[in-house]
Amino acid sequence: MSNDDNHPAMQDLPIGIAAKGMRHEFDSMGDVDVPADRYWGAQTERSLQHFNIGGDLMPKPVYHAYGYVKKACALVNNAAGRLPDWKRDAIIRAADETISGKLDDHYPLFVWQTGSGTQSNMNVNEVISNRAIQLLGGTLGTQQPVGPNDDVNMGQSSNDTFPTAMHIASVAAIDDLLVPQVTKLAETIEKKADSWMDVVKIGRTHLEDAVPLTVGQEWHGWAGQIRDAIADIETSREGLYKLAVGGTAVGTGLNAPEGFAADVAAKIAELTGKPFVTAPNKFSAQGSLDAMVRAHGALRNLAVALMKIANDMRWLASGPRCGFAELLLPSNEPGSSIMPGKVNPTQCEAMVMIAIQVMGNDSAVSISGSQGNFELNAMRPVIINNFLHSARILADGCEKFREYSVEGTELNREKIQSYVDGSVMLVTALSPVIGYQNAAHIAEKAIAEGLTLKQAALASGKVDEAMFDKVVRPLDMVGKGLSGA
Amino acid sequence: MSNDDNHPAMQDLPIGIAAKGMRHEFDSMGDVDVPADRYWGAQTERSLQHFNIGGDLMPKPVYHAYGYVKKACALVNNAAGRLPDWKRDAIIRAADETISGKLDDHYPLFVWQTGSGTQSNMNVNEVISNRAIQLLGGTLGTQQPVGPNDDVNMGQSSNDTFPTAMHIASVAAIDDLLVPQVTKLAETIEKKADSWMDVVKIGRTHLEDAVPLTVGQEWHGWAGQIRDAIADIETSREGLYKLAVGGTAVGTGLNAPEGFAADVAAKIAELTGKPFVTAPNKFSAQGSLDAMVRAHGALRNLAVALMKIANDMRWLASGPRCGFAELLLPSNEPGSSIMPGKVNPTQCEAMVMIAIQVMGNDSAVSISGSQGNFELNAMRPVIINNFLHSARILADGCEKFREYSVEGTELNREKIQSYVDGSVMLVTALSPVIGYQNAAHIAEKAIAEGLTLKQAALASGKVDEAMFDKVVRPLDMVGKGLSGA
Amino acid sequence: MSNDDNHPAMQDLPIGIAAKGMRHEFDSMGDVDVPADRYWGAQTERSLQHFNIGGDLMPKPVYHAYGYVKKACALVNNAAGRLPDWKRDAIIRAADETISGKLDDHYPLFVWQTGSGTQSNMNVNEVISNRAIQLLGGTLGTQQPVGPNDDVNMGQSSNDTFPTAMHIASVAAIDDLLVPQVTKLAETIEKKADSWMDVVKIGRTHLEDAVPLTVGQEWHGWAGQIRDAIADIETSREGLYKLAVGGTAVGTGLNAPEGFAADVAAKIAELTGKPFVTAPNKFSAQGSLDAMVRAHGALRNLAVALMKIANDMRWLASGPRCGFAELLLPSNEPGSSIMPGKVNPTQCEAMVMIAIQVMGNDSAVSISGSQGNFELNAMRPVIINNFLHSARILADGCEKFREYSVEGTELNREKIQSYVDGSVMLVTALSPVIGYQNAAHIAEKAIAEGLTLKQAALASGKVDEAMFDKVVRPLDMVGKGLSGA
Amino acid sequence: MSNDDNHPAMQDLPIGIAAKGMRHEFDSMGDVDVPADRYWGAQTERSLQHFNIGGDLMPKPVYHAYGYVKKACALVNNAAGRLPDWKRDAIIRAADETISGKLDDHYPLFVWQTGSGTQSNMNVNEVISNRAIQLLGGTLGTQQPVGPNDDVNMGQSSNDTFPTAMHIASVAAIDDLLVPQVTKLAETIEKKADSWMDVVKIGRTHLEDAVPLTVGQEWHGWAGQIRDAIADIETSREGLYKLAVGGTAVGTGLNAPEGFAADVAAKIAELTGKPFVTAPNKFSAQGSLDAMVRAHGALRNLAVALMKIANDMRWLASGPRCGFAELLLPSNEPGSSIMPGKVNPTQCEAMVMIAIQVMGNDSAVSISGSQGNFELNAMRPVIINNFLHSARILADGCEKFREYSVEGTELNREKIQSYVDGSVMLVTALSPVIGYQNAAHIAEKAIAEGLTLKQAALASGKVDEAMFDKVVRPLDMVGKGLSGA
Repeated sequence: MSNDDNHPAMQDLPIGIAAKGMRHEFDSMGDVDVPADRYWGAQTERSLQHFNIGGDLMPKPVYHAYGYVKKACALVNNAAGRLPDWKRDAIIRAADETISGKLDDHYPLFVWQTGSGTQSNMNVNEVISNRAIQLLGGTLGTQQPVGPNDDVNMGQSSNDTFPTAMHIASVAAIDDLLVPQVTKLAETIEKKADSWMDVVKIGRTHLEDAVPLTVGQEWHGWAGQIRDAIADIETSREGLYKLAVGGTAVGTGLNAPEGFAADVAAKIAELTGKPFVTAPNKFSAQGSLDAMVRAHGALRNLAVALMKIANDMRWLASGPRCGFAELLLPSNEPGSSIMPGKVNPTQCEAMVMIAIQVMGNDSAVSISGSQGNFELNAMRPVIINNFLHSARILADGCEKFREYSVEGTELNREKIQSYVDGSVMLVTALSPVIGYQNAAHIAEKAIAEGLTLKQAALASGKVDEAMFDKVVRPLDMVGKGLSGA
Repeated sequence: MSNDDNHPAMQDLPIGIAAKGMRHEFDSMGDVDVPADRYWGAQTERSLQHFNIGGDLMPKPVYHAYGYVKKACALVNNAAGRLPDWKRDAIIRAADETISGKLDDHYPLFVWQTGSGTQSNMNVNEVISNRAIQLLGGTLGTQQPVGPNDDVNMGQSSNDTFPTAMHIASVAAIDDLLVPQVTKLAETIEKKADSWMDVVKIGRTHLEDAVPLTVGQEWHGWAGQIRDAIADIETSREGLYKLAVGGTAVGTGLNAPEGFAADVAAKIAELTGKPFVTAPNKFSAQGSLDAMVRAHGALRNLAVALMKIANDMRWLASGPRCGFAELLLPSNEPGSSIMPGKVNPTQCEAMVMIAIQVMGNDSAVSISGSQGNFELNAMRPVIINNFLHSARILADGCEKFREYSVEGTELNREKIQSYVDGSVMLVTALSPVIGYQNAAHIAEKAIAEGLTLKQAALASGKVDEAMFDKVVRPLDMVGKGLSGA
Repeated sequence: MSNDDNHPAMQDLPIGIAAKGMRHEFDSMGDVDVPADRYWGAQTERSLQHFNIGGDLMPKPVYHAYGYVKKACALVNNAAGRLPDWKRDAIIRAADETISGKLDDHYPLFVWQTGSGTQSNMNVNEVISNRAIQLLGGTLGTQQPVGPNDDVNMGQSSNDTFPTAMHIASVAAIDDLLVPQVTKLAETIEKKADSWMDVVKIGRTHLEDAVPLTVGQEWHGWAGQIRDAIADIETSREGLYKLAVGGTAVGTGLNAPEGFAADVAAKIAELTGKPFVTAPNKFSAQGSLDAMVRAHGALRNLAVALMKIANDMRWLASGPRCGFAELLLPSNEPGSSIMPGKVNPTQCEAMVMIAIQVMGNDSAVSISGSQGNFELNAMRPVIINNFLHSARILADGCEKFREYSVEGTELNREKIQSYVDGSVMLVTALSPVIGYQNAAHIAEKAIAEGLTLKQAALASGKVDEAMFDKVVRPLDMVGKGLSGA
Repeated sequence: MSNDDNHPAMQDLPIGIAAKGMRHEFDSMGDVDVPADRYWGAQTERSLQHFNIGGDLMPKPVYHAYGYVKKACALVNNAAGRLPDWKRDAIIRAADETISGKLDDHYPLFVWQTGSGTQSNMNVNEVISNRAIQLLGGTLGTQQPVGPNDDVNMGQSSNDTFPTAMHIASVAAIDDLLVPQVTKLAETIEKKADSWMDVVKIGRTHLEDAVPLTVGQEWHGWAGQIRDAIADIETSREGLYKLAVGGTAVGTGLNAPEGFAADVAAKIAELTGKPFVTAPNKFSAQGSLDAMVRAHGALRNLAVALMKIANDMRWLASGPRCGFAELLLPSNEPGSSIMPGKVNPTQCEAMVMIAIQVMGNDSAVSISGSQGNFELNAMRPVIINNFLHSARILADGCEKFREYSVEGTELNREKIQSYVDGSVMLVTALSPVIGYQNAAHIAEKAIAEGLTLKQAALASGKVDEAMFDKVVRPLDMVGKGLSGA
């Protein structure tokens, strides 16, 4: 396809169609009427009718990502001499408008649709086609001079481009949405941990009193979990960098020119600034969604960590009079419609619920991942919707949790100290001196008779006051830093 | 509280506040500015700020259900002499507007909020309070003469009313949304099954050729699964009829008058036309969400059945040339952006994805159900959101699946017959005559040598043609009806 | 098949084969050597070789249940004149030995085998065949005079008998194992609850101090959850009473005589004393495992309830010095290898882990339930193994939890009282008197300034001492019984 | 503790205690009788009594791994001058016997026990103590001269050593059991794929006929999935290399000498030949089990891939007369007890069930991972049991699947070719030549009228025979290799 001189010129028209009523569109099955002020075509309209299910819409970031795919393909097709400059330019302009979200209103489809995402791919093809036609002064609905299948979708299939858009959207969600917020949360926890590295508190194992550690150590334990989870998310991202585009219908690359796969991946990498590459095995890349399953697994792992942390915080803040009461969480709102003055750990609860939702989403994603058949896993929409949902609620949840709970958390130092003073588990320090069994009997006596540890220890005759005071020193029992003995 | 004669009169004002900018509201923690054209108050606004997480909003049906709770409580409080008629009437009017959805725009909160749903309860209290104040000629934001806590929430806590609203909303979703659509699907399948009760086809077990049955029997097998699932949903609904309201903060009924629990439940039953009763054990009812877990389990069981059915349909329709090709599903849309003329089982795929999502939601619901503590399970928002989500996508999914796939499905009778003619598993009918081992050798020979069953049978010398023709008659092998031998 | 007079007589031989080395057995595929002292035949041996996977063996109760199936079929086949008395009697004797577990060593197969359970059915057929041959003086391995397929499996298929055995085994696990232990646990909790109905304690919602209830109410809340879960299990059992036997290979009943389905179900009901009936829709019964999925869902619901209860108990027992410390759990063992005198809520932890395992098993069961195809769900072994596993660990777990933790739990009344005395949430009782906002400010002041509630209340000027003492009485705040206001 | 010269000499005694009846043992709570021929002591016996739940025993590999921990600690304690040589040597001998499995009969405990694994740690301490006492000529049950707590557990807690043993056992399961078998499966698939790289077959997407690929490409798609899953497992193993030992009770390292953590990890690395290191953050390492959750997630991802592959294989083998019938799986056993000559894809079914079980186990593991509290996640036994279970059934399942199904799979080349010849989706190749819409109409006509693609194409007038024969060539449509266009 050569660059003909006699082509229509692109006009600089704003987005929008000044028309009312319906417009005729067509596809291979026949004519369909669509709203005249929408860019979409026949197949989008068919999908709207047939799949009006629930309130779940295909997430807009999928379309933004798809914009990159269409733009990159247009550039590569043009460079290969298959698409003239003027078509390329019109497609790119519409693709850019898609990327930026300016055409979001023209991407109305539901999540519950064809499992390949073809209908959303056709939505993109149709919108870009019609927008390009508009820019080039053509007649909407004619598929001329820029057709949705033959031009916008040139060298492509939904089967390779939809997972490509899934990967691009997922990487964006990780990089731009999730990791920044999770990192900020880790940093906030670490900062507070550093400031409390010498506040000795009682440890608890099995929910029961144990030997002491410092508040800072406990908080660094939480931060460490989050840091590990971030690292895991970043590792899982590697699989997302491998793009299916260029495999076309079944992985063989039929109807795409040689080199298309690598060239488009390189172009997408250039456009997005992310290290995307072409998937070395297109049959794995299209027949499975394993890289998505793996990446959502990493979100699940983060959820598991956050659930533990949020639970710890709310338990340590329980009270004010009848709980652990070591932490003082910010009072953001009245907690009860009936109990005046009640304040609840609501940010922690929201975080726990988010974590649980992500674990549920993970079940859905992994089942979906197992349900591929032959050259296609047709569970794509449910997977990308769950992935972006999980990423978003984790990101937003971390932000609010940090901003409205973690940052303002203070210590109830008096309570913390009183636990250290009262605990009998400090007896552990005596164990190497007098043996485990003797130490155990001292602890049992203290608990049974309501004695202080010192009282019970001296009463045992196994240790004198000087020894006790030398050995049972909480500050000497917390070690140094985070790495244990 | 007496019915004073000197009370403000209620005016018949339309919904809406003609004001711009912000309005001062307050709660026990102090003042908060809210948008002047919204009815909500301080606590709703606080929640909006603190819990702006993801795009998941508390489903509107929760508020519609809450309207019933508030209305019923106002009626019972009034009857008990605690709330004057004029306050009752204003509250009822605002509650009715809430029930009908006319105030939906004033219920903006997110799913991810306090685990008790207090913020949504306060949203209702605040909106009804301010709407009542408006109707009574008062000043919005003053909490006079109808206060959100003291009047609208009288005798109530979020802890008992939120699960009550959850149950009401869930029963409505089951009765009004889900069961009708699932029943229609079952009826459609049964109707088609009846019409195909004498079309003999090959059965398949382990995906492998087996003995014959009729198309109608196979379809009735699907319908039977759905009917069982409906029955299970209806059984699980029993637990939802038990309402927590009247337990107030922890189940003891503190601050509610004697008889309040039973009276409010009876009133809700009257208003909704559903057999709600007061929960006999308020500590179970508020400390757990077990009835919701059980009810979602029933949705999960439906999903399991639908997944099997949708999968069967798409496999039986696989082809057109290289698959089972027994069923012809309606062609609703072009199936591929690259492969011209391709038609895919898209409604089946959507149903499978919906089923998987419901299974994932079920994981989230059951984990949430396990996470109650003491007098409250603070995982309510995530549970009700998942329940209503599951019910809706199942209902809508069944509707579309029926309308756009099941109803238009036709048989490829030629293909069906060809399988019956070609299968060697009809040999099973010979087994009682010549013994299993002899029959097995006939089948093996047929397969190995590419013979028809009859050829192999006669070649075996174990059966003559008369016997073969008498015994190996597919029509005689399908039994009668659905109940087996 | 007539009762010939010239048949071999059954001898009263003990179980056991006095032979060493290997014995020749055969099936339609050829000869196989099996251990000479085992009753099983060729197909069992093939399965042992091909499916030696992990340590998971098909649970023995499946075989015990299968014994009932084979016995009932022999009786019905005999009554129908298809099986002579002497064959019937030998089969019944071997079936009875299977039912009683005496032949357990001859049922060695793994869970991970054919999805229909055919290999376990053939194991039963082969063992009963050879044992009958032995009793009748025949030669093992000859399949004469009682053949595994033609006699023991007469009128049957694995496809209808294996799910029948699953149902029988599951009902037995529910009735004989699970419900008795769970009921005992509920009874124990109720008994303790009754004895503590007047011990006032502080309630907790969101983990935070709330208004009071009694210890007995809290414990009855737990019991109520368990009672509801038992009821749900019993309801789900209804589906298990419907038996597939009589559907044979694909549900049509091919090769079974008319009336076989109903007769065998009635016979099984008679033999087991359980109300089994024939499934009205054999295509649903064999194409799906929905009744099993539903029944496991009920186990899952019990697990959800038990997890909440066990968690509550261990949190309330946390301490002894630095936790809630309201409950004193029995000290069954030293809790720590390093911390002397430490006692941990180990039975609660075991129960929580069991609950989690059951939730995981439930995921496996529901996924399996969704994976049926056409006339068979070939995920039977994984489902029955998970079902019986869940039932057993729940039953045993409830027994140990009750015996070693719940029964011996005592109250720390001093601690319980101190919380009631110290809590500020009793302010809620003042709310109806002075309004929610005033009450809130009193509570906030008490918390902020470390005052008692009474001090803060009097300081507010909103209430005098007489009023305070009249209204703020914990004993008057706990209502009556379990049903709230 | 110095090396005294006057110590008992170690004798070279075989494993075994020649005693009958019971032996007195004791712990801090008092005396307990244990079977006289067992090495275990009081705490093991208490656990056996209190936790006799189900049939799930703590997997023996946990004890083998624990042997390394005890040996390494003894070596480091000795080097630090805390444990004399003669005690060290006796402990090491008993530890080596534990490592090798020779003492397996002395490790009888159940999975459902204390959540920290303390009882299994004490089991190891007690067995090693008594075995060392025996070797040193002491009296069993006296805890002299080698005590379970003071000597064998020196510088250790269950809280740091049990997760250490979990990591060691998990790495061993990955390295020695799982990865070798999965790798062999991948290699077998790749080898067959290579041999079939030029066998053109029809592709299928949405289960529907699509454009062609080669059998080798399809098989390499499966292999690629497995290779990715192996890489993911190896990546997740990194987290398992970090060991908690040295953190003792709560992560601070109390009662362990300085440097203990790093030294023991180095010693374990030396003894096992694996790159274990000390965990940099002991509070994360003991408060969470995130590394285990992550590692099981990788097993789950493998399961997801294997489920797709096993499903593909059994569908492609469906038939023999009425299914896809492209693959011929080995006939390992008769498939049906009623249908003679039936052969089923039983290895595929076993693999699918294994995959589902692993997905269920993954749910249990992730829930467990979320349930840590403060300085301990007390869900360790359920996690390690599920991990080792998943690893084992995956490993064994891959072995049998490969050996008895994949290796013997053959192609039904005639059938494969017939599909290629009959499919109309080859029309896709015409799309770039005559446009998508024209191509679609040709395909639709062929399907509707039962024409060959060529007939319909020529009838359309859009393409002549020469063009058709040039463009529609299956061999030219499959691209080259695996990387698409």
